[in-house]
Amino acid sequence: MSNLIYGHHPIVEAIEAGRPVEKVFFQQGLRGELEKEIRHLTKENGIPLQVVPKEKLNKMVRGNHQGVVAYLSIIQYLNIEDVVPFIFEQGQLPLLVLLGGVTDVRNFGAICRSAECLGAQAVIVPQSGAAPANEEAMKASAGALSRIKLCRVRSMFSTVEWLQMAGIQVVATALSDRALPLHAIDFKVPTALLLGSEGEGLHPKLIKMSDAVTMIPQATDFDSLNVSVATGIVLYEAMRQRTV
Amino acid sequence: MSNLIYGHHPIVEAIEAGRPVEKVFFQQGLRGELEKEIRHLTKENGIPLQVVPKEKLNKMVRGNHQGVVAYLSIIQYLNIEDVVPFIFEQGQLPLLVLLGGVTDVRNFGAICRSAECLGAQAVIVPQSGAAPANEEAMKASAGALSRIKLCRVRSMFSTVEWLQMAGIQVVATALSDRALPLHAIDFKVPTALLLGSEGEGLHPKLIKMSDAVTMIPQATDFDSLNVSVATGIVLYEAMRQRTV
Repeated sequence: MSNLIYGHHPIVEAIEAGRPVEKVFFQQGLRGELEKEIRHLTKENGIPLQVVPKEKLNKMVRGNHQGVVAYLSIIQYLNIEDVVPFIFEQGQLPLLVLLGGVTDVRNFGAICRSAECLGAQAVIVPQSGAAPANEEAMKASAGALSRIKLCRVRSMFSTVEWLQMAGIQVVATALSDRALPLHAIDFKVPTALLLGSEGEGLHPKLIKMSDAVTMIPQATDFDSLNVSVATGIVLYEAMRQRTV
Repeated sequence: MSNLIYGHHPIVEAIEAGRPVEKVFFQQGLRGELEKEIRHLTKENGIPLQVVPKEKLNKMVRGNHQGVVAYLSIIQYLNIEDVVPFIFEQGQLPLLVLLGGVTDVRNFGAICRSAECLGAQAVIVPQSGAAPANEEAMKASAGALSRIKLCRVRSMFSTVEWLQMAGIQVVATALSDRALPLHAIDFKVPTALLLGSEGEGLHPKLIKMSDAVTMIPQATDFDSLNVSVATGIVLYEAMRQRTV
């Protein structure tokens, strides 16, 4: 637990200094200026905030936590509004991976590894409901987590809209009447791949907002592919079209 | 540990009755008829045999184990000499997955899941050094382990030879001077995909014996793909060529 910090000032300073904060835990029932400041700062900086009973905080740290505890992240999250223009400026054709709620740490790590290997420039995760970028994710990524650009966003809906405004097509991988087989999607244009959670898949509104929907054709009616395998296959098809 | 059996007769009878035995543990230093019989039966039936100190067996079971303990498998292994002719008789184009030493249980399960989803008819594993087909593998496979045909073979070398004699091309996935990019491989003929372990990859002799070698082109020089992701991509390319 060496990556824990606690107390009002250390946490405010860490956030204001731009240190990578994975998550903030705040004491249930605590009101006043501290609450307002922490709520404002976490919201502004896209940091997940979880309200928990005082007992939980007491278990996390021995010292005087003043009602607020935070985990520092082992990686630095970047701002999508900085990353996308940078990709264009570098003369690269954007290939982004948007994870709409992948909660399994090993799948998240494996996806970052595939993204790094197969030419995606960035992975984008939502502020809440995503797998933590922790040591286990780092291990599953074989270190790719520290190489790939990782962005955390407040809303997947507004991110999809923002990407579309930036000239990037959003391709959802989902079971849908609109779904085209993977090879029928044109990946030779700036693209963001949108992938859902292991259990529930993508939010219907996200599928509806997407420019195209695709499915990986299956040979049998058996279940479906693991989300990290599916992501690898979609990235491979994109790279195949872009290079062959 | 409800899938443990022990004692001379129960284990001999289980093997002779064709019950699926995952592995047999035999007491170090024990000689005589029992040893000969167990050695013969496990070898004949392709069952891994591990020699262990008596103390290990004592920890595994409370009863009188007589120097021999076995795990029953949750799935039934099939004989490759039966499976391959069956695939041809069904009028199917063989697509087989040969795992040369995938030891990670979750990767093994995910590979079986991809194989079932993407049209491979069987997965072939070596008798020693393979991940066990246990409950964790079953979970990672989302149940595919009980649907896909699973074969266990004594030697990967003789299996590769046998497959080639049966008219099946063996395609190794490996870093090699001979390696062609994945899309350049012809998958419209009977094919067995040969994939190596997570750490060490394939035995050089297996690569040399293969009819073709392939690599998944990567965008960066970063490490390589996770073995279950790589398998999914190779199976996808095979299915893409066979159906599009």
